[in-house]
Amino acid sequence: MTPKNAFYAQSGGVTAVINASACGVLQTAREHPREIGNVYAGRNGIIGALTEDLIDTSVESDAAIAALKHTPGAAFGSCRYKLKSVREHREQYERLIEVFRAHDVGFFFYNGGGDSQDTAYKVSQMCAELSYAMACIGIPKTVDNDLPITDCSPGFGSAAKYVATSLREAAFDLSSMCRTSTKVFVLEVMGRHAGWTTAACALAAEHEGGAPHVLLLPEVAFNEERFLAKVRASVERYGHCALAVSEGLKGPEGEFVSASRSKDAFGHTQLGGIAPIITNLISSRLGFKCHWAVADYLQRSARHIASETDVEQAYAVGRAAVEFALAGRSAVMPGIRRLNDAPYRWEIIEVPLSEVANCEKLLPPHFISSDGFGITEAARRYLAPLICGEAYPPFKNGLPDYVNLRNVATPKKLTSDFAF
Amino acid sequence: MTPKNAFYAQSGGVTAVINASACGVLQTAREHPREIGNVYAGRNGIIGALTEDLIDTSVESDAAIAALKHTPGAAFGSCRYKLKSVREHREQYERLIEVFRAHDVGFFFYNGGGDSQDTAYKVSQMCAELSYAMACIGIPKTVDNDLPITDCSPGFGSAAKYVATSLREAAFDLSSMCRTSTKVFVLEVMGRHAGWTTAACALAAEHEGGAPHVLLLPEVAFNEERFLAKVRASVERYGHCALAVSEGLKGPEGEFVSASRSKDAFGHTQLGGIAPIITNLISSRLGFKCHWAVADYLQRSARHIASETDVEQAYAVGRAAVEFALAGRSAVMPGIRRLNDAPYRWEIIEVPLSEVANCEKLLPPHFISSDGFGITEAARRYLAPLICGEAYPPFKNGLPDYVNLRNVATPKKLTSDFAF
Repeated sequence: MTPKNAFYAQSGGVTAVINASACGVLQTAREHPREIGNVYAGRNGIIGALTEDLIDTSVESDAAIAALKHTPGAAFGSCRYKLKSVREHREQYERLIEVFRAHDVGFFFYNGGGDSQDTAYKVSQMCAELSYAMACIGIPKTVDNDLPITDCSPGFGSAAKYVATSLREAAFDLSSMCRTSTKVFVLEVMGRHAGWTTAACALAAEHEGGAPHVLLLPEVAFNEERFLAKVRASVERYGHCALAVSEGLKGPEGEFVSASRSKDAFGHTQLGGIAPIITNLISSRLGFKCHWAVADYLQRSARHIASETDVEQAYAVGRAAVEFALAGRSAVMPGIRRLNDAPYRWEIIEVPLSEVANCEKLLPPHFISSDGFGITEAARRYLAPLICGEAYPPFKNGLPDYVNLRNVATPKKLTSDFAF
Repeated sequence: MTPKNAFYAQSGGVTAVINASACGVLQTAREHPREIGNVYAGRNGIIGALTEDLIDTSVESDAAIAALKHTPGAAFGSCRYKLKSVREHREQYERLIEVFRAHDVGFFFYNGGGDSQDTAYKVSQMCAELSYAMACIGIPKTVDNDLPITDCSPGFGSAAKYVATSLREAAFDLSSMCRTSTKVFVLEVMGRHAGWTTAACALAAEHEGGAPHVLLLPEVAFNEERFLAKVRASVERYGHCALAVSEGLKGPEGEFVSASRSKDAFGHTQLGGIAPIITNLISSRLGFKCHWAVADYLQRSARHIASETDVEQAYAVGRAAVEFALAGRSAVMPGIRRLNDAPYRWEIIEVPLSEVANCEKLLPPHFISSDGFGITEAARRYLAPLICGEAYPPFKNGLPDYVNLRNVATPKKLTSDFAF
């Protein structure tokens, strides 16, 4: 059998462990030289395929590939670029097949969230339509944990560990100072629609009354008076109040609280920034001194405090993607199935791409406490194992020693350009 | 010799390692039972002494005391409360001596920044005036690194390691996304007057052109046009721009940029929040998509990524404080003297409190690059060793396992209350 080349691309917002999936793909591919020739990586995701800007991963050393497992970000570049439907933009799909054909690509691995799984699914359909033989495999990734069917999404566990650790640490600071100074601390975390990351902050609380005392989830409409009463009660009872708020907090009409209220002195709508809004509300209405932090990219790139469980799962889905392709599967994605909560056990399953595309998994109602400001024991059982284990990167001169690949483009074979 | 009791208190904004200094004090005191009896800790700093709310540290196990070395925040509570001058508020000082006399305190250890060293100095003067025999020793602590004479301040190295690590990680994220999405990332860090923490972000850059590409230091007056030109040049050259900004950035008249421009939709002045202001300036003037983060308490409580060097120095000044007292010294503070940059070597020196009180050490001009947006090689040589070494706390269930002390009050001996 003549080996076919493979294409791998990273898509959408990156995570602390998406490169661990890349590592799983590349190491597994290198173990099968009779079936898989070169692995080309798309520079900046699918744009690399559309523009025939294919990174030749064969020039990277085994050590560099291994170092991907502890390096955050997208080593080959990612993109925010959603392919339109086949009907709207058929030439994009035809161009992809043209590029893949020119480079003898028989394996397509697409590492991303819901949109990316949708793209991988459409590419698989186009292959069938054009009779181009290519295994199309999705690889799950999202810091937001909002992919359906898979029990969790690689990238989430590390973000969860980061926010829970950060909130615990900040709460130690807060409780030290609250007698004469700051009484409220607000941490803004990601999750525009799904509250998984906000919910994970609750893992910092080891006992009833531990920080965080209040969560503001995007699934629960913001009620100003009930919220202020909750904050006041926490300060009265514990001397302080630590809270986590989702960037996607919504008002009673479903509008984003951040977008609706906040303009800066230039008259521009603030980008993000729900934390200062909540903080100002508390300080003006309750008179408490507040501090606030916005984790933003830090929470999804903090490889230094990654969850070992998450790193293992990210690597495993990368490896499984190649194994699925070698087994002749297509239009599928490796997912995680949970076998047991404690001790935590899981396995890889095969998920049809048609079932994951464009479907967002929100926090289920039974994970949200009755007052809407916390999580239930069921949520805690679900979340707890995902942050377990430490997987520190190597350090050099006091800083994490991450790899920068050479990212050399392979020579183009087509004469045509493509405007994306 | 009959042992005398000791008093220890934590003061001002806390750090990731101030408890390591507490650990140094308590462990060393326990090694000298013939000279030092019980160690009382002030609950919430000096307020604990004024109100005779003295924590009995003798009930804490050796294991709990040892765990202070890896626990952030102030284990006994801190406070923002500055004693006035002796002339203005003599009764406060007399009250302190009254409480100390009642509890047979012969050693006074005060762990804090410039204001706290000033307080310790004044207490020593009052002891002399009232002929009360007590060794008064300051212990340095400040995340801002702005204490004079000592080469560095315990607390700073860990904050520096945190911000440099975070900026490096966020820059990996940014450079992954910049082709089609975010081109600028802004990290706001602490340091209202001194730019040490902002400068430390520059350690993330391993080579010319590495992130961060721009620093906005509080020592350099903000020039909007020059700044925007610098950001534009970075995006044109590298595809993106990562920058760190001090919360204390000042305009040409010395006014805080954050305070001067930013009001929210409620009409309240924003607390902190220079990052969103800088971000909106860039997006409105240059049209780049931006992301921003505010580290706030996270940077001074992130014990999970503490600098081993910093932890060692924090512990060493705690130990030295007790040794100074046992040697009959008073009105002094242990400081750090640097003996060599690389390999880094340092020793403890004795600093007169009269020389450290109320004096702020800013970034010296020769540490700031000629364009004002970066640091020099001299600064890099100074900063580099302070973040070296990792000193991970133990983890349990995926989170740092920090200690909460019992903090039992010792019975009061005075009948009088004191309103502070």
